[in-house]
Amino acid sequence: MAKRNMESVVTIKDIAASCGVSISTVSNVLNGKKNKVSEEMSAKIRAEVERTGYRPNYLAKSLRSISTKTIGIIAEDLIVFSSPSIIEGVMNCCEEHGYNVVIENMRLFGRWSGRWMHDEALFQSALQPVLAKMDAMNVDGILYVGGHEHTVNKLISANNLPIVMSYAIAADKEIPTFRLDDVSGGYDVTKYLVSKGHKHIGVIAGEYDNTHTVNRIIGIQKAMFEEGILFDPSLIEYSTWNKAGGYNGMRALIDKDITAVFCMSDAIAAGAYAFLKEKGMKPGEDISIMGYDNQDIASFLTPEVTTVALPLPEIGYKAADKIIEMIETPLSAGKQITDIRIKGNIIERKSVKTI
Amino acid sequence: MAKRNMESVVTIKDIAASCGVSISTVSNVLNGKKNKVSEEMSAKIRAEVERTGYRPNYLAKSLRSISTKTIGIIAEDLIVFSSPSIIEGVMNCCEEHGYNVVIENMRLFGRWSGRWMHDEALFQSALQPVLAKMDAMNVDGILYVGGHEHTVNKLISANNLPIVMSYAIAADKEIPTFRLDDVSGGYDVTKYLVSKGHKHIGVIAGEYDNTHTVNRIIGIQKAMFEEGILFDPSLIEYSTWNKAGGYNGMRALIDKDITAVFCMSDAIAAGAYAFLKEKGMKPGEDISIMGYDNQDIASFLTPEVTTVALPLPEIGYKAADKIIEMIETPLSAGKQITDIRIKGNIIERKSVKTI
Repeated sequence: MAKRNMESVVTIKDIAASCGVSISTVSNVLNGKKNKVSEEMSAKIRAEVERTGYRPNYLAKSLRSISTKTIGIIAEDLIVFSSPSIIEGVMNCCEEHGYNVVIENMRLFGRWSGRWMHDEALFQSALQPVLAKMDAMNVDGILYVGGHEHTVNKLISANNLPIVMSYAIAADKEIPTFRLDDVSGGYDVTKYLVSKGHKHIGVIAGEYDNTHTVNRIIGIQKAMFEEGILFDPSLIEYSTWNKAGGYNGMRALIDKDITAVFCMSDAIAAGAYAFLKEKGMKPGEDISIMGYDNQDIASFLTPEVTTVALPLPEIGYKAADKIIEMIETPLSAGKQITDIRIKGNIIERKSVKTI
Repeated sequence: MAKRNMESVVTIKDIAASCGVSISTVSNVLNGKKNKVSEEMSAKIRAEVERTGYRPNYLAKSLRSISTKTIGIIAEDLIVFSSPSIIEGVMNCCEEHGYNVVIENMRLFGRWSGRWMHDEALFQSALQPVLAKMDAMNVDGILYVGGHEHTVNKLISANNLPIVMSYAIAADKEIPTFRLDDVSGGYDVTKYLVSKGHKHIGVIAGEYDNTHTVNRIIGIQKAMFEEGILFDPSLIEYSTWNKAGGYNGMRALIDKDITAVFCMSDAIAAGAYAFLKEKGMKPGEDISIMGYDNQDIASFLTPEVTTVALPLPEIGYKAADKIIEMIETPLSAGKQITDIRIKGNIIERKSVKTI
């Protein structure tokens, strides 16, 4: 961002006057509420802002109530394993920038188990009140923390507060989004297994229509293409993300010609371990196993599971950095679509053998 | 609580007038701020309240700003595994009573690792600002969620908001406290192992001066006394709460005359498993193992670990119920010392053999 020029004297009144509109129309345009202003007028106002060198920070100061230096976090559910780590990253960034944080927890799983995922009215009955509370608490911006990657509708602040999305997707594409890079995840795991000599790789995936599943499989295909390995769809077992899914998936794969299995969660890997041990086979020896998530269980299983650490604090940190940028320089908001995917790192342990 | 009699017309002014003090003095007494009023005057005011049948709820309505129907949670650290489940219980209760919840996260471990535990100034540098924020946000009451059981000093609201403690202890004994019943925990585990035929029981404990450790050992001793089993202190190995602690503890116990080991956390149990497997021994077969906490890892290890589920949502629920009671009927506050210890339940799995 350019340094603010303290000598600049253009005000929002000047912009409004030269465009022949009200101050609030200029404000709407600069805050991205384009639906309320015609396309032409919007362009005219932006051009005038460009021409005069008007600094939007003065806008923030003149129109908004005094900044509370507070970011409001809306969490889908604190009980989801990823949420506390994302929030840790958010708060770390906020502390560095002198912002407070206040957290609202929607408890979507706690209240309704998985039912809210297929019931938009139920979901909105949780979302809209917390959005209203954020406005009432006078936060400077809203940071949404998803429980998994799905699309969130009607993520709008009545007070036009800036919003940033993490670990989920907003239907409004102008809301900056920070999420997992699952394509790279699938790619990196496959490349790693190939580097250890594996060419016959089974996959125990999550549900077939889950975005994490879909994107990781794209990454797998990309890596296999590069390595000249035929992609055999019969080696992909779609399952649930838990131990039972891994157990069943391993049973389905065991008689196929594979030397390694990529399990899309550590819980799935634990299920694969359990099946192999039941059959008197050694994970990491007879069949190499790769996990995902780097949850506690990965380091507690024997042998310890080689896995991918989710970059949760980093997702939170970068999302917080963005919301602070939007608060402090509102003109930058909504100018381009921001959809940042952040890559995890492979944590090498003992479950993949070089062959 | 007695139903409120809508015909009662005694006001705080009447009490103040008949005692010859100001309204705020009456308020201080009724809100438990006894230090500001002499013992005699305090007794006189309470007697007058008794005599006239004055209803304290009118006090709440007349003196306080309008209730926000909001409970403020101060969490020591959301990243500690127990915090989200306690908060889930708090919010469940608040929802039933029509209260909102707002969460402040002090991030004690995230910011300072374990250093804050031995640095009171550092700890207070986190606590006092969030207490001030709670006052500024106009919450109706504060619910503190500890990360482990330790004593918290200076837990005071400048606005005299009611406070309830969960999963830690307040230095101010008048703050109602809801925490783990570790004595019963140690007792129940021991009784369970004895019921399965075990009389030679080793223990891999946490740090020797940790309150969870100390109280569980008291429970063990109680059960052994009842069962007529000599308590042999050389069978207690103090360790750290993690896998390494369990590994080392098991190594120290392995050559002693034991048939079962009580591990004071599931992570410790995982370490004990690892040591036994390294020696070619089978946990649950050659040596029975009991865990504690019922974390994910307990059900992922092979064989699955018999453990004790921490009553975290129940601790949160009961603490929330108390703070709501204090908000809605302030006279009841501070009258007796409330220190509720809540018992966990044994989750029977496959790591304890009947001998």
